[in-house]
Amino acid sequence: MLKNDLFLRACRKEKTERTPIWIMRQAGRYLPEYRAVRAKTDFLTLCKTPELATEVTVQPVDLIGVDAAIIFSDILVIPEAMGMYLELEEKKGPVFPQPISHEDDLKRLKIPDPMKELKYVMDAVSMTKRVLDNRVPLIGFAGSPWTLLTYMVEGKGSKNFSLIKGLIYNNPALAHKFLDMLADSVILYLEAKMDAGADAVQIFDTWGGNLGYHDYMEFSLPYIEKIIDGIKHKKKPVIVFGKGVHYALKELSKSGADVVGLDWTIDIGRTREKIGKRVALQGNLDPTILYGSFDKIKQETLRVLESYGHGSGHIFNLGHGILPDIAPEKAKALVDFVKEESVRFHAEEKKSDKKQHKKKH
Amino acid sequence: MLKNDLFLRACRKEKTERTPIWIMRQAGRYLPEYRAVRAKTDFLTLCKTPELATEVTVQPVDLIGVDAAIIFSDILVIPEAMGMYLELEEKKGPVFPQPISHEDDLKRLKIPDPMKELKYVMDAVSMTKRVLDNRVPLIGFAGSPWTLLTYMVEGKGSKNFSLIKGLIYNNPALAHKFLDMLADSVILYLEAKMDAGADAVQIFDTWGGNLGYHDYMEFSLPYIEKIIDGIKHKKKPVIVFGKGVHYALKELSKSGADVVGLDWTIDIGRTREKIGKRVALQGNLDPTILYGSFDKIKQETLRVLESYGHGSGHIFNLGHGILPDIAPEKAKALVDFVKEESVRFHAEEKKSDKKQHKKKH
Repeated sequence: MLKNDLFLRACRKEKTERTPIWIMRQAGRYLPEYRAVRAKTDFLTLCKTPELATEVTVQPVDLIGVDAAIIFSDILVIPEAMGMYLELEEKKGPVFPQPISHEDDLKRLKIPDPMKELKYVMDAVSMTKRVLDNRVPLIGFAGSPWTLLTYMVEGKGSKNFSLIKGLIYNNPALAHKFLDMLADSVILYLEAKMDAGADAVQIFDTWGGNLGYHDYMEFSLPYIEKIIDGIKHKKKPVIVFGKGVHYALKELSKSGADVVGLDWTIDIGRTREKIGKRVALQGNLDPTILYGSFDKIKQETLRVLESYGHGSGHIFNLGHGILPDIAPEKAKALVDFVKEESVRFHAEEKKSDKKQHKKKH
Repeated sequence: MLKNDLFLRACRKEKTERTPIWIMRQAGRYLPEYRAVRAKTDFLTLCKTPELATEVTVQPVDLIGVDAAIIFSDILVIPEAMGMYLELEEKKGPVFPQPISHEDDLKRLKIPDPMKELKYVMDAVSMTKRVLDNRVPLIGFAGSPWTLLTYMVEGKGSKNFSLIKGLIYNNPALAHKFLDMLADSVILYLEAKMDAGADAVQIFDTWGGNLGYHDYMEFSLPYIEKIIDGIKHKKKPVIVFGKGVHYALKELSKSGADVVGLDWTIDIGRTREKIGKRVALQGNLDPTILYGSFDKIKQETLRVLESYGHGSGHIFNLGHGILPDIAPEKAKALVDFVKEESVRFHAEEKKSDKKQHKKKH
């Protein structure tokens, strides 16, 4: 049994003694211990070597004290396993030198068998579970089909997204074929991750916010829903995090996800009022606050805790990944502060607290 | 008198026969005629040569048929006039090789006299007014203090915004000094532009959306309000456009601006319900829709018109600048379609229309 299951209980909106916290990209370049591992190997080899992936996955649990680990990997291992050649250099960003664009490209792609092409991820998951020794839960993750397709079509980072937008506007039927194939791939992948030991999964829709409402409803949300529908029989919590999708929070709360992750531009308190009955909320401190002083970090962390208010169903996190030039002691201070300060938001609520809470909204 | 004052009347929410349209970055690289001018000169020289700036400003009026011209310039001419050395290369983006960061940098900056350091802009405005010969109104513009300061502190395009965020979190007092100086500079600049003939002005807050709600309320909105307050005695319409500031639309509608510009992630119909009594709305077709077919462009344009609904107070535009690889005939088709299709949204409203309108919301 897990020694610390706060995160899982919060996902299910069960009562907890305090607010759990983990940090997106917590196993990453801001940690000198991570950079030391990376100095010996390239990014993709790190992803593909279970011993090393396990090592960096566990680092923030030991060093920062987070309440959940998230398996070290990259969302683009799926397109690679589908048959695309991937160059993954952390600093300059991922590149697919042969991006997809035509009907013919469907033939280049297959739905990968996670126990074959992606076995290294499953090995990393089960090895990490062993090393974690039930200290905290382990999260698995995947990119949303829309976000994966954006990379596969653009081939590399883009400013205008002309290729992916050209595809969905000029050949939506083909886009849907790609997206459907991606959804199927993600389902098998996340199922296998959960079988290997992942206690919860998060779907990252990093590029969701490039779409307006109607396009999001056509090209992103249905495939997120398909994935959730395909994996719900595993009965493990599913988190959906979309960046810039302020217009789709209600829809995401009805997607079947247990938890909706919020970026830092969203008012978590008001969002709780709107959708907090259906789902737990994760987030959403501005990641750049960690450039500030310890006092500033405390002040803004408290603001997020107060905005969510009293009671269960909040998983503290940043509103996006931790930035590579953040000092690790800032991340540690954040975690410590949430652990201390959040206790009072979970104590028996006094009448006067309730009043204050109501008044604030 | 202006032959086509639809844009100005729409800014004031007066009745118009149809919805006016202009396009952010309409004088730009997507036009071969613009590229022909640029082939002969660099970007900054183009800004600083009134004859050339006039030529490219008028191009989209002649070629695309927009209902307003916007003076060709760049928001960074103000920091340059304040004393910062600027390298402006359209393709790689602007660079300040000596960005600001310390109290001492205040001494490097002055509030520019627009009739001296920025006289070339005023000359371009008055020359453009002559060449336009009252065919359509001319818009002047400036960056918001927050957006200008972001460039001045980062020095160049940024992904993490670590420097500007570090400044506001670690030395907010200094940030406020810079922002205040910028607001004063923008006030004088926009006043001079209006004196030179600009019929309306737009404030661009391109980087507003990098801030969460509370930071926006401290570091961006107050300086936009200061500018509006400083220029309102000119009695010319003021448009505020912020990208990614979905959380601040109500506040922007109370900023004193006549028009609030919306990016493409905002539901213009619902926004009209919330703030449309106070301000006109500008926007908000996804700029990437212009990668689609003519039919797709029509379909999505109609969606925006229908979402805004019947009546005055809508200025059609994209939800961000037109992208450099858009075919000019697509932009032309958009303008033509808005001119034709919008007429019925301004005709006397029939009872059945009203019903339908109500039902849709």
